[in-house]
Amino acid sequence: MNKDKPNSWLVAKELVRLLEVKQAGVYIDHVVAAHIGRQDLALPISDFHQVVDLIFVLGGDGTLIGLAREIAPYSIPILGINLGHLGFLSESEPDDLPDAVDRILHGDYCVEERMMLETEVRRAGEIIHHSIALNDIGIAKGSFGRMIKCHVYADDLFAGTYNGDGIIISTPTGSTAYSLSAGGPIVVPHINVILLTPVAPHSLTARPLVLPAEGVLQVKVDATHTDIGLTIDGQIGYPLELEDEIIIRRSSHITSLIKWKERSFFEVVRKKLQGETD
Amino acid sequence: MNKDKPNSWLVAKELVRLLEVKQAGVYIDHVVAAHIGRQDLALPISDFHQVVDLIFVLGGDGTLIGLAREIAPYSIPILGINLGHLGFLSESEPDDLPDAVDRILHGDYCVEERMMLETEVRRAGEIIHHSIALNDIGIAKGSFGRMIKCHVYADDLFAGTYNGDGIIISTPTGSTAYSLSAGGPIVVPHINVILLTPVAPHSLTARPLVLPAEGVLQVKVDATHTDIGLTIDGQIGYPLELEDEIIIRRSSHITSLIKWKERSFFEVVRKKLQGETD
Amino acid sequence: MNKDKPNSWLVAKELVRLLEVKQAGVYIDHVVAAHIGRQDLALPISDFHQVVDLIFVLGGDGTLIGLAREIAPYSIPILGINLGHLGFLSESEPDDLPDAVDRILHGDYCVEERMMLETEVRRAGEIIHHSIALNDIGIAKGSFGRMIKCHVYADDLFAGTYNGDGIIISTPTGSTAYSLSAGGPIVVPHINVILLTPVAPHSLTARPLVLPAEGVLQVKVDATHTDIGLTIDGQIGYPLELEDEIIIRRSSHITSLIKWKERSFFEVVRKKLQGETD
Amino acid sequence: MNKDKPNSWLVAKELVRLLEVKQAGVYIDHVVAAHIGRQDLALPISDFHQVVDLIFVLGGDGTLIGLAREIAPYSIPILGINLGHLGFLSESEPDDLPDAVDRILHGDYCVEERMMLETEVRRAGEIIHHSIALNDIGIAKGSFGRMIKCHVYADDLFAGTYNGDGIIISTPTGSTAYSLSAGGPIVVPHINVILLTPVAPHSLTARPLVLPAEGVLQVKVDATHTDIGLTIDGQIGYPLELEDEIIIRRSSHITSLIKWKERSFFEVVRKKLQGETD
Repeated sequence: MNKDKPNSWLVAKELVRLLEVKQAGVYIDHVVAAHIGRQDLALPISDFHQVVDLIFVLGGDGTLIGLAREIAPYSIPILGINLGHLGFLSESEPDDLPDAVDRILHGDYCVEERMMLETEVRRAGEIIHHSIALNDIGIAKGSFGRMIKCHVYADDLFAGTYNGDGIIISTPTGSTAYSLSAGGPIVVPHINVILLTPVAPHSLTARPLVLPAEGVLQVKVDATHTDIGLTIDGQIGYPLELEDEIIIRRSSHITSLIKWKERSFFEVVRKKLQGETD
Repeated sequence: MNKDKPNSWLVAKELVRLLEVKQAGVYIDHVVAAHIGRQDLALPISDFHQVVDLIFVLGGDGTLIGLAREIAPYSIPILGINLGHLGFLSESEPDDLPDAVDRILHGDYCVEERMMLETEVRRAGEIIHHSIALNDIGIAKGSFGRMIKCHVYADDLFAGTYNGDGIIISTPTGSTAYSLSAGGPIVVPHINVILLTPVAPHSLTARPLVLPAEGVLQVKVDATHTDIGLTIDGQIGYPLELEDEIIIRRSSHITSLIKWKERSFFEVVRKKLQGETD
Repeated sequence: MNKDKPNSWLVAKELVRLLEVKQAGVYIDHVVAAHIGRQDLALPISDFHQVVDLIFVLGGDGTLIGLAREIAPYSIPILGINLGHLGFLSESEPDDLPDAVDRILHGDYCVEERMMLETEVRRAGEIIHHSIALNDIGIAKGSFGRMIKCHVYADDLFAGTYNGDGIIISTPTGSTAYSLSAGGPIVVPHINVILLTPVAPHSLTARPLVLPAEGVLQVKVDATHTDIGLTIDGQIGYPLELEDEIIIRRSSHITSLIKWKERSFFEVVRKKLQGETD
Repeated sequence: MNKDKPNSWLVAKELVRLLEVKQAGVYIDHVVAAHIGRQDLALPISDFHQVVDLIFVLGGDGTLIGLAREIAPYSIPILGINLGHLGFLSESEPDDLPDAVDRILHGDYCVEERMMLETEVRRAGEIIHHSIALNDIGIAKGSFGRMIKCHVYADDLFAGTYNGDGIIISTPTGSTAYSLSAGGPIVVPHINVILLTPVAPHSLTARPLVLPAEGVLQVKVDATHTDIGLTIDGQIGYPLELEDEIIIRRSSHITSLIKWKERSFFEVVRKKLQGETD
């Protein structure tokens, strides 16, 4: 839950009330539980998978993505209750809570499976970083303007060298996020592909690339400096060094999103992109 | 065979000679046969599927694509001998003919299957046009500058309205052709997707779209004029009228391309795009 | 005036009433005059320049652009009353008519001068077409998918060959129209430049080009077919033949737009682009 | 002079020899002088403006740009001798040295003036950074993936907020550098404009913007972190803080480039972009 959104405590309280009225078992993340005075329902998120069938997440897409990484090994379906701008991933609005609770309890929803990516960083033969992403992995230069070179191999085949600000390796879910800003295409969520999108590439012939999800991508970064970073879902950063090898492949984990049947992916994209004003 | 390329007759003669030395059975398209004085080997292309195991096509990618449509129902592997600029599809150069013939006769090659698209145009309930494409289907305004509106449905779901010069529906093979010019991504050939790329879209939020190959696309065109055309592989045109419905889906036919093992798709893209000078 | 917009007659009547109340001299285009029963005020547009100080145009940007070409030689200021979507050029809404009339009569406005382009087509040494544009000149292939080659010379210097769907030569005013769809930049209106934007160029290195307004552009079109058209402001089409030479330069005429002081160009662009939903 | 290029000392020696044969007065940067054993000709670059009419710079565009900033106040013409890849700015190749020296001594060349940009950073009312750029000023997020917001004002008018990786403010000279990678247009060098190009903008409606050179641009950066940097010509970095105000305007200094008459800007762009293979 994103605790900075204005009315988030009210929504949390109301959601608990609605669920208890229906006699559903409810557990709440410790921090939220303390805030809304329901410590009796508190449970660490890391234990959720032992007892819950479904998680409500209150916030925007960013909050949902963070949770998705955290619970990735457990495949628990997530329903996003959107507290801010329209989201690509959050399916419900606070005003629809009673209806959402009803549908959940009656099983009137679909579960959409979204592929995730797994990243390893190898330094001097050792794995020094491992992470999972729902949207994307960014490999980027720092703020002082010098380009980096990303040598990319797909299943040990040299795919190309991308010189510029960096590259984005994205899932279909991430295709509407950072990759889109950098000129990538929109990918329908359930297609099994990985997207490679260069950011401000030096060469005009460097274009976004659609790759099979089954392959293994290997990236070696070269630069005349060492201000290079790896970013997971635009949320978690990890500093890279020059000889590092970054291995990216489809994760065995997935994110399960609760979706109502009536809203198509295309409709969400349309609303979200055309209403984009921030 | 492209008869306008300068040394095409010489290459054709040499190829026949090399094959006959190896005692391979050879048939030649009527026109070429007449030109090189080998009417004894002449056969209409439409009968090739009854007797040949493999077709050599002399020319550029355009010539190969035209042949691919013609023999689509028969899955005969094609080896392109490139007579002009480097091609994405043609695998051999005239200078490599002896080696190419050897490899073919020894089975030292792969066959790469490329998906094709099937297009139907329905007017007043009747199918008035049917065609197969290896690269792409273009739906475009005429030369007099007024935009058209393409309403697109994917599996009966409204995917969006694209206002502008038109749209391109492309296979992965076509992703490096017209779609790339219009801003589309490069798609690795064997991925099962269909690409929709708008051309000069009125709205900046209209972006290239990667769709599953299994779906059915339906396009309805709207405009304040009737200068609208359908184009197959940039080679065959068909005039559209305002109430026409265009149905595009993956074809049950494929194109089988002969490929040597050592040259990767990425290498071809790199050479082709970076050497682009015309 | 655009006669197809729903409430256009009402707005026209109201405008005449407001002006007559203030004892301003009013003339009306014949067709509109007939429609609103004020034939007493009718005057052909071609005679307006002899008697009027300012023209109100009711409609969208398209209507205003058409009028601008028609009165180009006379530099009469135009105030666009926007009857449809928000326009880049139309400054007022029907609801603001009383205020607009007041400001006009009190001289409380600016006049913004917009450069125009002049186009000549020369065939076999003769000038066979001459026109003026406020937004842009398009040179484009027809609907049947084959690319054209535009050889462009700037002040007799070879600037490049653009292969693809065609090119757009645009004023700063036109930079937010067709050129923007094709990937061109937004140009602040009063800058003295001409914009050349290729449409779906074959080569990825063909990019939009900002040229000085003082120069003379010469375009020669080459193709393997003859379905090529010249389009003025996206409104008027003229068929081109293969040996035609198209000369484009800044016109000695300008369009004078009435602007209130408080609305900046940036604000209009922001509203227009972000609200774009058609 | 770029001392890492392989044959740079040889070229430097040969250039000195050629000039001395013609009895031209020669001064050399201290470091180079020491390296080629001609300490008798050594002079600090900062004193060059007192005695020289023209500076030869040996290296690539980067070396020339660095020198251009250093000598900006003195308007001394520069001739770039290109030691690496083809450059946009360097006019000569080492093989043409004798001819270049001849032309220089006979005055057979043009001097092309290139505008420069001046940047001030104000923090808490004080100017804490001042610099001059020939190509561009970048304002960018650091390597850890979180977007920054750049609020841009042009002559005190709010031009827009650009959310994303950052923005590039570029001269026409810089239009073929970083700005081009980020999607900006190519600007003919002598046009008086400033280019603003967003990098990976969050909103698809954020587009490159062509502004008048006479205006003053003011940028305020907002972010949820403080890893933000200012970069001059992609060469010099300066860390920014959140309340900083960045003022960018045309510099009163210019760079004077020696140009032979026969090579047009368009030709250089064509060769450079199409040969781009790094």
